[in-house]
Amino acid sequence: MGDRILLPASKLPKRWYNVLADLPKPLAPPINPGTGRPLDPADLAPVFPQALIEQEVSQKRWIEVPEPVREIWSLWRPTPLVRARRLEEALGTPAKIFYKDESVSPPGSHKPNTAVAQAYFNKREGVKRLTTETGAGQWGSALSFATCAFGLDCIVYMVRVSYDQKPYRKTMMQSWGATVYPSPSDRTEVGRAFLAQDPDMPGSLGIAISEAVLDAVTSRDSHYSLGSVLNFVLLHQTVIGLEAKEQMRLAGEFPDIIIGCCGGGSNLGGIVLPFVVDKLEDRPDLRFIAVEPTACPSLTRGRFLYDYGDTAKMTPLLKMFTVGHTFMPPAIHAGGLRYHGCSPIISALVDQGLMEARALHQNAAFEAGVLFARTQGLIVAPETAHAVRVVIEEALRAKETGEPKTILFNLSGHGHFDMSAYEAYLSGKLTDYAYPAEAIARATAELAESVPEVKV
Amino acid sequence: MGDRILLPASKLPKRWYNVLADLPKPLAPPINPGTGRPLDPADLAPVFPQALIEQEVSQKRWIEVPEPVREIWSLWRPTPLVRARRLEEALGTPAKIFYKDESVSPPGSHKPNTAVAQAYFNKREGVKRLTTETGAGQWGSALSFATCAFGLDCIVYMVRVSYDQKPYRKTMMQSWGATVYPSPSDRTEVGRAFLAQDPDMPGSLGIAISEAVLDAVTSRDSHYSLGSVLNFVLLHQTVIGLEAKEQMRLAGEFPDIIIGCCGGGSNLGGIVLPFVVDKLEDRPDLRFIAVEPTACPSLTRGRFLYDYGDTAKMTPLLKMFTVGHTFMPPAIHAGGLRYHGCSPIISALVDQGLMEARALHQNAAFEAGVLFARTQGLIVAPETAHAVRVVIEEALRAKETGEPKTILFNLSGHGHFDMSAYEAYLSGKLTDYAYPAEAIARATAELAESVPEVKV
Repeated sequence: MGDRILLPASKLPKRWYNVLADLPKPLAPPINPGTGRPLDPADLAPVFPQALIEQEVSQKRWIEVPEPVREIWSLWRPTPLVRARRLEEALGTPAKIFYKDESVSPPGSHKPNTAVAQAYFNKREGVKRLTTETGAGQWGSALSFATCAFGLDCIVYMVRVSYDQKPYRKTMMQSWGATVYPSPSDRTEVGRAFLAQDPDMPGSLGIAISEAVLDAVTSRDSHYSLGSVLNFVLLHQTVIGLEAKEQMRLAGEFPDIIIGCCGGGSNLGGIVLPFVVDKLEDRPDLRFIAVEPTACPSLTRGRFLYDYGDTAKMTPLLKMFTVGHTFMPPAIHAGGLRYHGCSPIISALVDQGLMEARALHQNAAFEAGVLFARTQGLIVAPETAHAVRVVIEEALRAKETGEPKTILFNLSGHGHFDMSAYEAYLSGKLTDYAYPAEAIARATAELAESVPEVKV
Repeated sequence: MGDRILLPASKLPKRWYNVLADLPKPLAPPINPGTGRPLDPADLAPVFPQALIEQEVSQKRWIEVPEPVREIWSLWRPTPLVRARRLEEALGTPAKIFYKDESVSPPGSHKPNTAVAQAYFNKREGVKRLTTETGAGQWGSALSFATCAFGLDCIVYMVRVSYDQKPYRKTMMQSWGATVYPSPSDRTEVGRAFLAQDPDMPGSLGIAISEAVLDAVTSRDSHYSLGSVLNFVLLHQTVIGLEAKEQMRLAGEFPDIIIGCCGGGSNLGGIVLPFVVDKLEDRPDLRFIAVEPTACPSLTRGRFLYDYGDTAKMTPLLKMFTVGHTFMPPAIHAGGLRYHGCSPIISALVDQGLMEARALHQNAAFEAGVLFARTQGLIVAPETAHAVRVVIEEALRAKETGEPKTILFNLSGHGHFDMSAYEAYLSGKLTDYAYPAEAIARATAELAESVPEVKV
C-alpha cells in the first residue's frame, strides 16, 4: 500500500474520545481562585459557550462531532499516516517509524482541529465574534481560518514583538479576514496600563491573554477562545489519534512507543489519548513520551500543583505540572513549547506513571529536524523537531538492542514560517539555554504566596 | 466519496505522456545559433544527461518513469484532486470546480516533479553535482530537495536581490543541503565581470542562468538543470494531468475547461497535455486556458518567433511566443510568471488554436487568491492566483449562461513564502503595472538584429 496510509472521507471520525471516562483516577477539579473551591461550570459562561463547558467536565466516553465541523475538517482531513522509511534507512534501525502528518491543514498544524470545533459551537450559540491571543501566530492563524469558515469575526491580540518581527503569520490571519492588534494595545484597560508605563513595551503572552479575555467579556456577542491546555481542546484533538489508530490497523501495525512534543499538551494529547485505553487494558508495555524544551521543562522539572493558566492570574486554578505562572522562559524558537504549565490531562498521565517525559536543547531538536528534512523531505516546525529528536533516539536504541520497535509520532506542524530558526541553526548561531534552575525555583516558590489555598 | 479524490499509491503513474507523438503539426526544431541550423542533440551533452536529451526530441507517446523517481515522488504523490465546493457556493455558480493540489510537495509546488527526474537521470549517468539558477526560490528549492534525495551536490545561483530580501527560500535550500550563492557571484567569469562594473549589482535571472551554465560546463562531473520551458520538463510534469484524469474519472466527471497559470509553461503543460488527445479526438469543445500577467504577456501580446531562452544568449534558439529576451518585466510578485518566452509546446498549442490565453493584472489575481483562501482555506502562490482568477471568471460566466460547466485547474503552489505580497495587496499597496507596450515593442524589434537567421 506504499508508505502513505490514506483514509477515505468516509473514515473521518464521527466521535471524539473522552479519556476522562477511562482515567484510573479522576482529575483534580479546576478551582475558583476567589473561593478556593471547585469551579462552578457556570462561571465559565462569559468566555465559553455552553457546549464547550459541558465537554470540559463531561465523563461521557464518546462525544459526537457535529457534521459542520466534519465538513470543514474534510478540507484537509483525514490526514496521512506516513511510514518514514528513508529516515529508518538513514538510521539503519530495525524500528518502524510512522508519523501522523498534521502539517497539511491550511494553517499548517494540528491547531485547526479544535479551532474549527470552537468556532462552530460558538456560532451555534449565537456568538458573533471570537477573541484570542497568539505568540508566534500558529494558534491565531488556526482560529482566523476557523472563524472565517463559519462567518464569525476574529480578533487576535498578537504579542507586539512577534507582530513586528514575524509579519507573515499576521498577514496569513488577515488573509482569512481576522483583525490583528499588537499587544499591549490601546483597546483594553490592561493594555493601556502597560502602554502608559512603556509605549514601546514588547508585550508577553500573559498580557495578550488578559487583553483577549477582557475584550471578550466587555464586548457584545463575544467569546474567548483558547488553543491548548483545557480538556475540551484535547478532546477535539483526539481526531488525530483516532485516525492514526485506524491507519496503523490498516498497515497491520500497533505502536510500541508514541511520541509528541509538549507545550500546553494538545498535539500530544491528540495522538496519545485514544491509545490510553490500550495501555490500561492489554498493552501495558506501550510507552508514551512527552518531549519538552530544557528551557521550559514543566513535566521534567516542574511541580504538580494548582497554578493559574496565565501570567495575569485571570484563569481558574488548574492542577498541573508547572514551573510557575511568573516564570518567563528563554526565547527559544519553539514558541509553542514556551508555556509554564501543562494540561491537567497530560499532567495526570505523567503523575500516574502512564507517560514519560524528556527535555532537550533546541540545537538537538534542529539537528533532528534537518535529518528529517534530508530524508523525508518535509521541514518540520521547531516544536515538532523536539518530537523527531526523541523518535531518533528511540530508533537508535532499538538498533542497539536489535528490537524492531514500532514508533508513532505526531508531526504537529510544518516549519515554513520558522525558517529564520533553521537559518540560525544552520549558521551555528543557535543558543542552547541551560535549564533555568534559579528562575524556576523562584517562580515555583512564589506559588505558595500567589495561589490561594485550595479547599477540595 | 467526499470532496477530496485521493488515489492509492498503486495508481501513481508509471509512464509519462509525450504530447509530441500526437501534435497535429510537429514542433519547429531548436536551432543552433552558431549555424542557424537545427541543433544536433549532441550539442546539449555538456549540460544535460543523455536520457534527458533523448526525451527532449523523442516522438514516443509513452516514456517509462524509473522506479527510483516514483519512490521519491511517493513521499507526496499522488496528490489530491479536490472539488472546490465552498468556492462554488460563494460564487453561486452551477459550475463544478476541481483543483489538482500540487502545493503538497515538500518544496510546495509542482516543480519537484521534474527536479526529482532530472536529479535521477543525472545521477544514473555519473553526474555528481547539479547547478541551477533561481529567482524567488521555488525552482531552487525543488532542485535542492531532489538532489538531496539522490545524494548529489546542488549549487544554486540566486538573484542577489532575492537572496538578500527573501532569505527564507535560501534557508529552505540550505536545509536540504544545497549551496546557495548570490548572483552575480565572484565564482564565474560572467559574475566577476558584472561585479567589476558594480559591486552592489542586484542581479537578474539572465545573469544567474549564465553563471549556472558556466559553472556546469567548467566543473568536473557537473551538469546544469532547468525547471521549465523544455520538452522534457513538460513531459515530467504530465504526471499531474495523468493523475487528474484518473481522479476525474473516479469522480464521474470530465472537464469542459482546464486552466493553469503560465510562465515558462511547465505547470500548465503538466495538467493540460494528457487531455490534448481528448480534444483532438472526441472532445473538440474542451477548452484550455493559459493565464499570464499583463506585465509579461508573451502569449497574448508577444510574437511567435525564434528567440533565445535566456537574456545572455547562451541557449539554443527556440520557436516560441516571446516578448523578446531583452525585455525586463516589471517586478510583479508572481516571479514565476516573469519569463520573456513560453515553452515551444505551449506556444504551438496556442499558435494552432488549441489553447486560449488571457492576461491579467496582479490585483485581480490577489483578489481571487483571497477569495480562494476564505472559501477553500488554502493560501495559494501569486502565480496560482492568476489561474484562480480565470477559474472564477469562467464559473461566473457559467452562472450567467446557466451551464453546469466542469472546470479543472492546477493549484501549482502554496503562498507560504509570498505573504509579503498578500500583505501588499491587503493593505492596498499593490501596483498594477500597465501593459509595457513600448518596452515589448522595442525588445521584439531587436530580435531581428540579435537573433541569427534560421535556415530550416
